Amino acid sequence: MINTKVISIGDEILIGQIVNTNSAFINEKLNCLGIKVKKVVTIGDIRQDLLDELQDSVVNDFKINLITGGLGPTHDDITKPILLEFFNDKLILDEKVLEKVKSIFAQRNVIMPETNIGQAMIPSKSKVIWNEYGTAPGILMEKDDKMFIAMPGVPFEMKAMIENSVLPLIKEKYLRNPEFFHRSKTLLTAGIGESLLSEQIGNIEELLQGHKMAFLPSPLGVRLRIEVKCKTEADADSEFHRIENSLYEKIGDYIYGQNDDLLEELVGKLLIEKNLTIAAAESCTGGIISGRITDVSGSSKYFKGSIISYANEVKENILMINADLLNNKGAVSSEVAVEMAVGVRKLLKTDIGISATGIAGPTGGTESKPVGLVYIAISIGDKTYSKELFLGDNRHRNRIRAAQAALEMLRKELLILK
Amino acid sequence: MINTKVISIGDEILIGQIVNTNSAFINEKLNCLGIKVKKVVTIGDIRQDLLDELQDSVVNDFKINLITGGLGPTHDDITKPILLEFFNDKLILDEKVLEKVKSIFAQRNVIMPETNIGQAMIPSKSKVIWNEYGTAPGILMEKDDKMFIAMPGVPFEMKAMIENSVLPLIKEKYLRNPEFFHRSKTLLTAGIGESLLSEQIGNIEELLQGHKMAFLPSPLGVRLRIEVKCKTEADADSEFHRIENSLYEKIGDYIYGQNDDLLEELVGKLLIEKNLTIAAAESCTGGIISGRITDVSGSSKYFKGSIISYANEVKENILMINADLLNNKGAVSSEVAVEMAVGVRKLLKTDIGISATGIAGPTGGTESKPVGLVYIAISIGDKTYSKELFLGDNRHRNRIRAAQAALEMLRKELLILK
Repeated sequence: MINTKVISIGDEILIGQIVNTNSAFINEKLNCLGIKVKKVVTIGDIRQDLLDELQDSVVNDFKINLITGGLGPTHDDITKPILLEFFNDKLILDEKVLEKVKSIFAQRNVIMPETNIGQAMIPSKSKVIWNEYGTAPGILMEKDDKMFIAMPGVPFEMKAMIENSVLPLIKEKYLRNPEFFHRSKTLLTAGIGESLLSEQIGNIEELLQGHKMAFLPSPLGVRLRIEVKCKTEADADSEFHRIENSLYEKIGDYIYGQNDDLLEELVGKLLIEKNLTIAAAESCTGGIISGRITDVSGSSKYFKGSIISYANEVKENILMINADLLNNKGAVSSEVAVEMAVGVRKLLKTDIGISATGIAGPTGGTESKPVGLVYIAISIGDKTYSKELFLGDNRHRNRIRAAQAALEMLRKELLILK
Repeated sequence: MINTKVISIGDEILIGQIVNTNSAFINEKLNCLGIKVKKVVTIGDIRQDLLDELQDSVVNDFKINLITGGLGPTHDDITKPILLEFFNDKLILDEKVLEKVKSIFAQRNVIMPETNIGQAMIPSKSKVIWNEYGTAPGILMEKDDKMFIAMPGVPFEMKAMIENSVLPLIKEKYLRNPEFFHRSKTLLTAGIGESLLSEQIGNIEELLQGHKMAFLPSPLGVRLRIEVKCKTEADADSEFHRIENSLYEKIGDYIYGQNDDLLEELVGKLLIEKNLTIAAAESCTGGIISGRITDVSGSSKYFKGSIISYANEVKENILMINADLLNNKGAVSSEVAVEMAVGVRKLLKTDIGISATGIAGPTGGTESKPVGLVYIAISIGDKTYSKELFLGDNRHRNRIRAAQAALEMLRKELLILK
């Protein structure tokens, strides 16, 4: 085992203002390489505390030390000065980093404040870990067989650095002749809960044969994380495929993707492949479906627009839904969902219309139409159909789940389409 | 300062399967008492690692040590045996706990498995921390002036124990005559970056006079966390107000809220207060503005709906924007933003129209209209105006920032409205 420690520097964590998602991300990525983090430590921006942690890494033989936070341009960023102190080093200017920092400000049409030159000053014994998205570069310093890597705490900057630089560095240095071979994958499911999924899979011990699988529920669905560990590469591959194939056989209907797949991207690819355009009519989801579709770069190829028909008069006047239908069946009904999908498709002249109407809560529920009741509908070719969902009583999660269900319904429709 | 450490025992955290929300909860609760956690450590269920942490607490004088996890009935629950070892103690049966454990199983109509008798065995030198909701009691052990409290890792069990027992115990033991009084608050800013904010604030050391402030950037804006610590309550209050007032004076224009405020909720309250309705016309934000507005319970009072006019034909045919204008000025222009806001307001018959059009990226930028260029516009009463933004090159964040800027522009407009 390669002793590994994650050190998070952040007062926000210590005062409970934010949760340490940075370390969760790093831990998971390392786990995929077969490296289990031994210790995660969070400390504040206090000189002695960070020095103590660095010393502890040396004394207790932590080979890999990943530090996040405390690398910005302001007065409270202590990581760099303390690395200098610990490694008895001095700062030098890195021209390439300075150029990058300047270019970021230029892009924003802002003159670079003087304080930001400091961002380009790095310890002379260090290597720069390139920061694609921000002004603070990461820093790699090595002491004997140990590496210390400092990264900014801004999640998207840190994540890109982990993927692009840190993981390759770790592989190169520590994983050249591994004792075990690891395979892992996350299968993404939607439309089924944790316990039903478990029932459909059946005898899990028999399936896993000592390997590992975790159920990770979220409002977007349950993710299944498979982990296989074997003494040879061939065994790892065959065991992994045995488990994966068996899961696809048993619950394949609910699996929409793998690892970092995003449903909106999968749907986007299918729409391009089939050369179809789409529009949405959203009520309870209020723009979340459209927001997800348009989060995909290139979505303008297939997405024309949406009508967010929150008020009934918008359903009536813009989507041209019959007032009697709205009165008789109610805005939250299968019939209105269908008319919304048909209406927006006609209005925006697209191949597909998709809609959602429901009672997001927390108020507005009745006995026959409780909070969490949602109808989604799709209109495509000469067919239009709807689906009824009961999603629970949390407004925020309901809306996320409804949008996810709509996109998954769309993906399935596109898959069977000839 | 009362040195405080939180020790989380949990493999799920170390492999990145779950985020350490337990410690976030504990940290926040303690922070409210004026106790800032100095260190949070996560380790696995490994004997030596926990022993090392306990030893570290003694050596480094951590007075309060809160341990979560590793207290269940299964073989991998190591906290109790290790506390026994560390305190050189032995187990005794606690009849009251045994009764509680039995009653829980009786409630579930299940016969208590033998292994659960172990739950009622507690170290002879310990005090029981009552577990209202589960079978594993918490354990308090004291060594000189230090307390070690072990709790189960199940969040709702742990949370009840913290509120009902642990916080009162800590107050009783350490906060009878507090040495210091604490005040803290987070100011939420939008529309300005970390370094410009820092420049506008000016000499931060002079402002803080030894108190603390942290800059916490995110795509929604930079949050400023102020922390004041004084020997008397009166001083704490006056110092806190001095700093807060000075910040409002210097950067008040950028502060939209405090602590957990959400911009969409603040805007919602203002719309209700002024009895106004709103509709949005979104292009580059693709539904994010509407999604945020409707995430607020009760938003149907003021939000009628939106037109997501992603394609130019939707801008033309639904929002009735002049085709020549679209051709001459381009869809991403101040003029089109204005027409979108006016158009959606007219179409949906609302008091306010708000719009966003821009180049979200990563492709589609030109020299004169780079990726990240966004126009937002507001139409209200007899005035309509737009704002030009340069947001950077990350599509996902651009969109979030554009939506935030639109909501903030709206909030400011509503504030000055008579």
